[in-house]
Amino acid sequence: MSNRLPDSSRTEQSPDERIVLAHGGGGELTRRLLLDHIVPKLANELLSPLTDGAVLPAAAGRICFTTDAFVVQPLEFPGGDIGRLAVAGTVNDLAVMGAVPKALSLALVIEEGLPIRVLDRIVDSIAATAAEADVLIATGDTKVIEHRGPDGLTITTTGVGELPEGLELDAGRIVPGDAILITGRIAEHGLAVMSARKGLAFQTDLVSDVAPLGGLAQCLLGAGGRVRFLRDPTRSGLAGVLADLAEETHLGIEIDEEAVPISATARHAAELLGLDPLTVANEGKIVAVVAGEDGPAVLAACREHPRGRHAAILGRFTEKTDWPLVELLTRVGGRRIVQRPYGEELPRIC
Amino acid sequence: MSNRLPDSSRTEQSPDERIVLAHGGGGELTRRLLLDHIVPKLANELLSPLTDGAVLPAAAGRICFTTDAFVVQPLEFPGGDIGRLAVAGTVNDLAVMGAVPKALSLALVIEEGLPIRVLDRIVDSIAATAAEADVLIATGDTKVIEHRGPDGLTITTTGVGELPEGLELDAGRIVPGDAILITGRIAEHGLAVMSARKGLAFQTDLVSDVAPLGGLAQCLLGAGGRVRFLRDPTRSGLAGVLADLAEETHLGIEIDEEAVPISATARHAAELLGLDPLTVANEGKIVAVVAGEDGPAVLAACREHPRGRHAAILGRFTEKTDWPLVELLTRVGGRRIVQRPYGEELPRIC
Repeated sequence: MSNRLPDSSRTEQSPDERIVLAHGGGGELTRRLLLDHIVPKLANELLSPLTDGAVLPAAAGRICFTTDAFVVQPLEFPGGDIGRLAVAGTVNDLAVMGAVPKALSLALVIEEGLPIRVLDRIVDSIAATAAEADVLIATGDTKVIEHRGPDGLTITTTGVGELPEGLELDAGRIVPGDAILITGRIAEHGLAVMSARKGLAFQTDLVSDVAPLGGLAQCLLGAGGRVRFLRDPTRSGLAGVLADLAEETHLGIEIDEEAVPISATARHAAELLGLDPLTVANEGKIVAVVAGEDGPAVLAACREHPRGRHAAILGRFTEKTDWPLVELLTRVGGRRIVQRPYGEELPRIC
Repeated sequence: MSNRLPDSSRTEQSPDERIVLAHGGGGELTRRLLLDHIVPKLANELLSPLTDGAVLPAAAGRICFTTDAFVVQPLEFPGGDIGRLAVAGTVNDLAVMGAVPKALSLALVIEEGLPIRVLDRIVDSIAATAAEADVLIATGDTKVIEHRGPDGLTITTTGVGELPEGLELDAGRIVPGDAILITGRIAEHGLAVMSARKGLAFQTDLVSDVAPLGGLAQCLLGAGGRVRFLRDPTRSGLAGVLADLAEETHLGIEIDEEAVPISATARHAAELLGLDPLTVANEGKIVAVVAGEDGPAVLAACREHPRGRHAAILGRFTEKTDWPLVELLTRVGGRRIVQRPYGEELPRIC
């Protein structure tokens, strides 16, 4: 059904207007919120404010399906905001499965009291990031709950994408000698969010790397090398991805500390916070596992991509073992075991 | 990838254990929460705790795609809980589009302090309702945020279903004379939730009608009548659905007050709360628009279905008009205009 929004329907609003509980009741005020602030910005041929869902054309291949809830605080941070994060995060989960992202759903849970101008900025950011990622916001839901604290907005995005026939990315295909590549500098999302947090604010030029990575993933997959596996190092950072891979493959992993790309700014920020940057999230990078001899070719292709300029091969898989470890070969020639963080080091960074 | 949960991995827990922030950090405690309390209960061939999403087999027809955020309070209420509601609500959105539900995603945002035994009950309910609806939980996400108030859990479910070729449900096909059918008694979800709410508690035998309706929708569609449109009367109730339909079709609507199915218990509860039951949500009913002369046949088929025993034809579409109204023909022979509620009458009932 068409998006039936008359031009004259937009009501006048003061810049300080805030969300009230009645915006979420499902009645006339809910319609006004949707029709004035959300639907027109996201408008496309699939999205209709008054139907229960969207109809997508039949897909050629298998369908990839992924969901993420975003609870980042603050809602806006250097380099991005919760809206950009929600779109990019779900697009990236599809991208690292090898899928071409097609459509997203968008569920907003808004607390009473959120300034409508903040909501407007975030919806604008959602629209811009969806356009950048070439994905449609196909369907959505909006709920309003009572005020419970600052930054009262959570967003859940779910994505569907098409997985080309024949493409099989699977950690089960990884063998000893495979190379581990990362498409750029680590830790930049988590540290940028922390730098903006009340009570922890510190001066830094660091900005989040949050970005949709469909193009970068296709670049890696199209480079002519045998790509075994892709994953974006979000929560738990590079350390989390590598710990999962060691456990799943029963292979050891060696990482060369000197090869791990990190900016001086990020290194200093992590030191200031007492964090191991290996455990801090990115939202704009991909970890790729590639057949050892294909590593240089895939690396070269990646560095040609605007989002892959600082790519590096940082390690390799070693022999099969009952107790697979991730080991960091340090600058001074030592070995340190890299572990998945136990609990939260950086809560609410995505 | 397979769900690799060793039998010995389940850790001992005290019955009073609560969620802590570290359960959501993406590290080892997050894995324990997922592997001990969530993934095994929902296990199926699509769900893997360690991948970013699921791969669904290629679909034969068009794909329906819908999302809902659930913020109901209290989390458990007579006749259901937020888990059953989240599965049924999204399944029902697919069902009223005419689609066969295939897979759901499940995103949990849990506040610190939620008793783990409550989470366990809700995840059990999700698993049971998904089995009842014959739908797989294919992928998910879990986030933990700081304690902000009681009943700290929101759930967003997103569904994909297959829409059979040739099936076209569309309010644009509705013509004057079409009959309006409802599959059972109105207002039972919203009133049951209100009856359980702190500060408003009142004694009633009312239970929520929350249930997955895929089978009932297929029963309506398979009855041999010309079904134009289906919708489940959730937020804003029957009044909301009819107001949308009048606006969308530019046709008038007449409802016979005497024909609207409602239990005496629900009628009394609505009176007690000062609510118009026409505006109160169901979560287990369908409103169907059917060609006028096919109404009796579809009604008869519906009444044979266990969830359709109290079905009724309660009104009809009338002539085209610039100001389409929904009118209630009252028991005493009067006419009353039925309107979509303006703001929230019943916040957080879904």
